[in-house]
Amino acid sequence: MKVMVLGIDGYLGWPLALRMIARGHEVCGADNFYTRKAVEEVGSWSAIPIPSMEERVKAVKRVFGADLHFKEGDLRDYNFISSFIEEERPDAIIDFAEQRSAPYSQIDLSHAVFTMENNVIGTMNLLYAMKESAPNAHLLKMGTLGEYGTPNIDIAEGYFEVEYHGRKDRLPFPRQAGSWYHWSKVHDSNNISFAVKIWGLTATDVHQGPVYGTRTEDMKDDELRTRFDFDEVWGTVLNRYCVEAVAGLPLTPYGEGGQTRGFISLEDSVTALSLLLEHPPEQGTMRVVNQYAESRSVMELANMVKKAGDEMGLNVQIKPVPDPRVEAQRHYYNVERYVLPSLGFKPSHTVEGEIPVMLRDLMKYRDRLIEKRDAILLAGSNAGVNWRQTSNKVVKKPLRSELKA
Amino acid sequence: MKVMVLGIDGYLGWPLALRMIARGHEVCGADNFYTRKAVEEVGSWSAIPIPSMEERVKAVKRVFGADLHFKEGDLRDYNFISSFIEEERPDAIIDFAEQRSAPYSQIDLSHAVFTMENNVIGTMNLLYAMKESAPNAHLLKMGTLGEYGTPNIDIAEGYFEVEYHGRKDRLPFPRQAGSWYHWSKVHDSNNISFAVKIWGLTATDVHQGPVYGTRTEDMKDDELRTRFDFDEVWGTVLNRYCVEAVAGLPLTPYGEGGQTRGFISLEDSVTALSLLLEHPPEQGTMRVVNQYAESRSVMELANMVKKAGDEMGLNVQIKPVPDPRVEAQRHYYNVERYVLPSLGFKPSHTVEGEIPVMLRDLMKYRDRLIEKRDAILLAGSNAGVNWRQTSNKVVKKPLRSELKA
Repeated sequence: MKVMVLGIDGYLGWPLALRMIARGHEVCGADNFYTRKAVEEVGSWSAIPIPSMEERVKAVKRVFGADLHFKEGDLRDYNFISSFIEEERPDAIIDFAEQRSAPYSQIDLSHAVFTMENNVIGTMNLLYAMKESAPNAHLLKMGTLGEYGTPNIDIAEGYFEVEYHGRKDRLPFPRQAGSWYHWSKVHDSNNISFAVKIWGLTATDVHQGPVYGTRTEDMKDDELRTRFDFDEVWGTVLNRYCVEAVAGLPLTPYGEGGQTRGFISLEDSVTALSLLLEHPPEQGTMRVVNQYAESRSVMELANMVKKAGDEMGLNVQIKPVPDPRVEAQRHYYNVERYVLPSLGFKPSHTVEGEIPVMLRDLMKYRDRLIEKRDAILLAGSNAGVNWRQTSNKVVKKPLRSELKA
Repeated sequence: MKVMVLGIDGYLGWPLALRMIARGHEVCGADNFYTRKAVEEVGSWSAIPIPSMEERVKAVKRVFGADLHFKEGDLRDYNFISSFIEEERPDAIIDFAEQRSAPYSQIDLSHAVFTMENNVIGTMNLLYAMKESAPNAHLLKMGTLGEYGTPNIDIAEGYFEVEYHGRKDRLPFPRQAGSWYHWSKVHDSNNISFAVKIWGLTATDVHQGPVYGTRTEDMKDDELRTRFDFDEVWGTVLNRYCVEAVAGLPLTPYGEGGQTRGFISLEDSVTALSLLLEHPPEQGTMRVVNQYAESRSVMELANMVKKAGDEMGLNVQIKPVPDPRVEAQRHYYNVERYVLPSLGFKPSHTVEGEIPVMLRDLMKYRDRLIEKRDAILLAGSNAGVNWRQTSNKVVKKPLRSELKA
């Protein structure tokens, strides 16, 4: 199978590319390197240093003997994505090429608009390019479990049977996202479902929970490592806790800490995604997948990191900070999963088992974490992103209209 | 009350401005005149000639003695909308400033992207501008019943009580829109609900069915008339049938003609909207309103126009054309309404009563209709917009990336 990974330079894009290569598939990919720049924009960097794409391509050749065809470009440029698809004619296209941070989207108007434009228009361009040049390819789109929010009922896998006033229908599960970023993913899901309906495209919309971890089994070489973000804007909760523990900072759950999400390790994430790629849905249909391994509250995670850190002699403290988000701090949470189990997927990693691995991996880069400690502590310092505010102190981008003038 | 009408030059914006002025409110408004240009783009014009905005403002002064403050501008320009709101400090803002045609959004990629960008980014700018300069104003946003699609259950008014696996919650009613345009409205609805949640804005999201009619009771003068579109891209079904009947062309229902929608007259639409403006929801809440007067299938409407036209000696034929849309041609359709009835709203016009009025009004402009008959007949001529095709013969806009280059 020939696989195109859009956003191949990212935390997930790179390990998935490696996995598909390791499994003998032909892989090509694109990236605009936006995440590298945007992490710098908030005064941070990847905890684990990563090589340039040129070096990555060489490392793939050296370790796997495989040719990875990379092209730099942006999905907001239709001519770029359509010509890349036309040249490569992939069997599957994985779309990670989105602004992926909820806090980043909440910084101010310009970041909110950037997120909408990058994600929604990028996906529109991709859908039209597929329709024109690869109508039979399988689109695997990375969404998020955050699209569903935290309803007081079980979360179905995309669609559910509804009975209302004595009549029944199978309908899309209601979405209640919690940030401009999460809403942009809802808009994408909706637009993709419509393209499938009118043009007969084939798509898998993966709603994944937060991913944690420093490695996959394919990273047999230091040059094959993936990025690892830990600042308040780009890092996700468990990864950030591990960095806080290693950097000698208190763990900072938001508010009461009862916020519960479905977590999955980087290793299990790429395993699940490769299964989905190797088992596409029926041609012309839309498949929705809820992808996670275990549900945990953020306070549970903090306690687990403290326990593992203390056992390593790190003397970890937990110091809750006011919740900058607008979200339920205690709630019901049960997310249904049918597709991945039906393909035989069984998670191989647990949060508890992986935390010591992460802590050990991060200890090697302790100096890099401490150097950027200001970026870790934004939430506690009142300089961070706050959902209730429209302008924040983190960074200020020029507005679209200012750019035009 | 001081009311700001965004999209004040449009089919609905202008009559609502007149109604609010007639009811003694202070009115200001903005428009970028995009609809005037885009109707020309598809080779058509308003059946009823309309004066320039300068003349409109003078006519308002002459007839009502009122000052209407108009400013030309575009919601995609944040500086424009934020400074206009800051200057005017309105109590209510009505947002009609969107690309409002489903076929226009389906012409090709550039029109689809324009629709997403104009509607979604315009609304984001408006929400941020309100948050900054008018956080207590009431936003009345024009949505569409088309956001819901045609589910096999009753359509609730925005939210509904769901029981799933033994648990209950009140959730947003699932959306299943039928064009890029309709999806852009869903994205707007979602974004507005989120702004209400995180910032405490106050909003009414009006899901309205297709509007028909040539006049409201406030149009006491020819210079106060509103535009009336009839081409396949910009005209809605009943208005187009009336034009076809007057122009001596067959009425052209799509496919089987069982597509059922909730219709409302222009007069009743502005009456309902003024009621909603004069009775805003509780501060900091989101109110969803389903707004229509009667459910009719498009074949029923064709038969009613034929009957009225024949009685006027027009000898009307009905000639179904293949459905260019991807939609159910026969389906269940029952849309719930609670808000407007609770405010005492009762429709004063029916389709059957209004068709003869429309036919008589349009007879005066028969020459204008015949001159643009090519724009009416696109669907029959194979040159029209087709949901299954990505490129069409109607018009071709440059792509964003071509514009940049």
